Amino acid sequence: MSPEEFRKHGHDFVDWMADYLASVEDYSVRSQAAPGDIIATLPATAPQNPEPMADIFADFQRDVMPGITHWQHPSFFAYFPANSSPPSVLAEMLTSTLAAQCMLWQTSPAGTEMETRMMEWLRDMLSLPSDFQGVIHDSATSATLAALLVARERATGWRGNEEGLAALGAEGIMLAVYVSEEAHSSIEKTMKVAGYGKAALRKIETDDEFAMQPEALSAAIEADIAAGFTPACVTASLGGTGTGAVDPLRAVGEICDGYGIWLHVDAAWAGSALIVPEERGMLDGIEFADSFVFNPHKWLLTNFDCTAFFVRDAQALERTLSLVPEYLRSRETGAVIDYQNWSVPLGRRFRALKLWFVIRSYGVAGLQEMIRAHIALARGLFEEVSGESAFEIMSPLRLALFSFRFHPANVDDEAALDALNEELLQKLNDSGELYLTQNRVRGRYAIRFSIGQTGTQKAHVEAAWAKIRDVAASLK
Amino acid sequence: MSPEEFRKHGHDFVDWMADYLASVEDYSVRSQAAPGDIIATLPATAPQNPEPMADIFADFQRDVMPGITHWQHPSFFAYFPANSSPPSVLAEMLTSTLAAQCMLWQTSPAGTEMETRMMEWLRDMLSLPSDFQGVIHDSATSATLAALLVARERATGWRGNEEGLAALGAEGIMLAVYVSEEAHSSIEKTMKVAGYGKAALRKIETDDEFAMQPEALSAAIEADIAAGFTPACVTASLGGTGTGAVDPLRAVGEICDGYGIWLHVDAAWAGSALIVPEERGMLDGIEFADSFVFNPHKWLLTNFDCTAFFVRDAQALERTLSLVPEYLRSRETGAVIDYQNWSVPLGRRFRALKLWFVIRSYGVAGLQEMIRAHIALARGLFEEVSGESAFEIMSPLRLALFSFRFHPANVDDEAALDALNEELLQKLNDSGELYLTQNRVRGRYAIRFSIGQTGTQKAHVEAAWAKIRDVAASLK
Repeated sequence: MSPEEFRKHGHDFVDWMADYLASVEDYSVRSQAAPGDIIATLPATAPQNPEPMADIFADFQRDVMPGITHWQHPSFFAYFPANSSPPSVLAEMLTSTLAAQCMLWQTSPAGTEMETRMMEWLRDMLSLPSDFQGVIHDSATSATLAALLVARERATGWRGNEEGLAALGAEGIMLAVYVSEEAHSSIEKTMKVAGYGKAALRKIETDDEFAMQPEALSAAIEADIAAGFTPACVTASLGGTGTGAVDPLRAVGEICDGYGIWLHVDAAWAGSALIVPEERGMLDGIEFADSFVFNPHKWLLTNFDCTAFFVRDAQALERTLSLVPEYLRSRETGAVIDYQNWSVPLGRRFRALKLWFVIRSYGVAGLQEMIRAHIALARGLFEEVSGESAFEIMSPLRLALFSFRFHPANVDDEAALDALNEELLQKLNDSGELYLTQNRVRGRYAIRFSIGQTGTQKAHVEAAWAKIRDVAASLK
Repeated sequence: MSPEEFRKHGHDFVDWMADYLASVEDYSVRSQAAPGDIIATLPATAPQNPEPMADIFADFQRDVMPGITHWQHPSFFAYFPANSSPPSVLAEMLTSTLAAQCMLWQTSPAGTEMETRMMEWLRDMLSLPSDFQGVIHDSATSATLAALLVARERATGWRGNEEGLAALGAEGIMLAVYVSEEAHSSIEKTMKVAGYGKAALRKIETDDEFAMQPEALSAAIEADIAAGFTPACVTASLGGTGTGAVDPLRAVGEICDGYGIWLHVDAAWAGSALIVPEERGMLDGIEFADSFVFNPHKWLLTNFDCTAFFVRDAQALERTLSLVPEYLRSRETGAVIDYQNWSVPLGRRFRALKLWFVIRSYGVAGLQEMIRAHIALARGLFEEVSGESAFEIMSPLRLALFSFRFHPANVDDEAALDALNEELLQKLNDSGELYLTQNRVRGRYAIRFSIGQTGTQKAHVEAAWAKIRDVAASLK
């Protein structure tokens, strides 16, 4: 395809993209496809000869679009948001055209230096400690993995990387890691990946608001030390996935400080809210943190993938992950940042560009306005649901997240309530008018309501609540 | 930014993108920026108020572009290519607009089902065994990590994930992994990540063509078994990064088969060449492989990130990496593929779309033509360099890669030759006319010549060779 053919198709695509952004509300939020529907439209073998772009684009619209769940629909209230924005999409167009591999400084100095600067912007926007240095990872899971790896190395005197954990185990060196019961599943996953094993993960009891109990953390650490374990890392959640739980950072941090344990802070979703000063209470104690992760690709208008991972001791991170074979050496090795040494994958897209586009396009004030608007919408809905006798709040409002269940006066059996709410959720999602997901709160089925999509307005939240009441009433 | 404002900017961007593709040869291949040049143009703090897109775009062109190393320049002969194409960029425009998070089947059925189909297309295009199932990862490093994790679990009876490697070490269970001396550094990196430790990696001697010596592999395995180690994985390279070395897959595979060791095949770069039947000799013995990785984002016209990772036992992969907390359960859990269970990160872009665009746009025949053209260009240049008395071949032609050094008759000292060639390389890259990188071959400095950029034609290779001779002559 020549540049001129690309130009022609590119203009057609931009028109489709603008139309999509203008009409995304016309789609069913969750795809209504059944398993196998989409693959049935795709031939079993690759075509031998070239096919015209017009055909491919037409097939995309006809066969692929019905299989899309519309994360950019303003009635998307499921999971956490992955909100995007037009400036972010524009930046992605440039990134994919340049298609530069930003693994080393030399392989695109702008990729590295803009990443450094954008991480400084974000650090200061969130009011994180000024000695934190940041790097973009693909996902919070990967950042948490990196944190668990540095923690592992620090706890073993950098012997894990060299000798392996089995050799350390043979000497009786056994590590332990601590999280709350509410912590994200990615921590358990990365425990497996990094060789700690699930058995080394201690899930600390939470209080009535789902926050880690510092006394229980202290007790678990003491018991481990007495049993010969080496505590390596505590992960504190600011805004857990299930209930938005906020661990008490200062109390947890003081404990970590006392024992010299690496403190990792997982603010994957809630981190974006720290750009508004009135939500920074949860940061009290951040001076004890060794690392911090949040996802601009969740709630800061920036396309996935864009996870911001901050560490206080970047040298420790680099020592843990760097490896420079001859063919990756450059004239500048050691004198510049080669971000491949700060993360597991070698290859890296020019991901900082979209942050630059988004932050400049909206300004800090515009981004603050978006966060505040979502929080206000959630608060309004939370109050409405709280005031409705047939509904029960299952977890408190945290920023723009809470969970509830339908609890009509005539149903008291917990298993029946679980089934009723599962049915309610499926009917709501099958309507295509909104998209919600569930959680288990203290064992009981609860419906999460999470607000954060770019275009969500009061009308969308009101329509969602009306729909929930209607469908619930039809179940009685 | 409204959809109509996006439309306007989008059209401007497409014109810039088409112009860039048409004029990429006018840029210096390697950025000529010095460390600090780019960051100096970026304010130290984020703007408080919104800025017009016209300003951002102008700053991009003026301040950022000088910091780009042009991987899409047809005189890019460094590293391995990361070749892209207009259809791939078009697909990326749609992917970033939809901005769907394809972590579960339900969160975009089209993302999952197209990924399944595209992996089948690629598997068959490469002539891989029909029982292989594939998944897209971000990079070969991540795929190799996944392979080392499944191998670890299989070798420990799935106890590593649960109990951790230290607990196994305390019982005397110690693992070992085998690669050739020429294997990619990512294997050493993932050994650290997965908790094996570097000490558990055995680097097997290579023959005159840099291929793993099967007898040396057998001997190392026997020695390990005698010493109480459990061999967990052998990684065979098809087309190593330094010299393009090809390990003898059948001989290595038979050894793995005999001991029940997981055989992972790293064809990150060379895998794309398997779409042409005449290069499939290196696949002899593939029936012994348990996993296989190659990067369509290197040499198959598809934007990074797009690593194709194949496994024979997908259930083993899923058992190793899956974790389904309540908030990630869906009605279809267990009945469909949720690819988050096949890789480390939870979040996933709709990456299969660009493969669909590329393979249909070029057809298998068009992609084969591109591969054959690059190999023919490399062969032509290899013969020219071989015939020039002042130059010395340092590693043989492998597909579209070989390495050489300048070796004038009056210089015999090896250290002097290293310095001379380092100077040659820097001068060539400083010219901006082409971009090459180096390797060490048996300890000596060598210049790699790697052909694979989308637009590379005979004229670019001839100009590069003329420039190399000219600059070399000026050094005498």
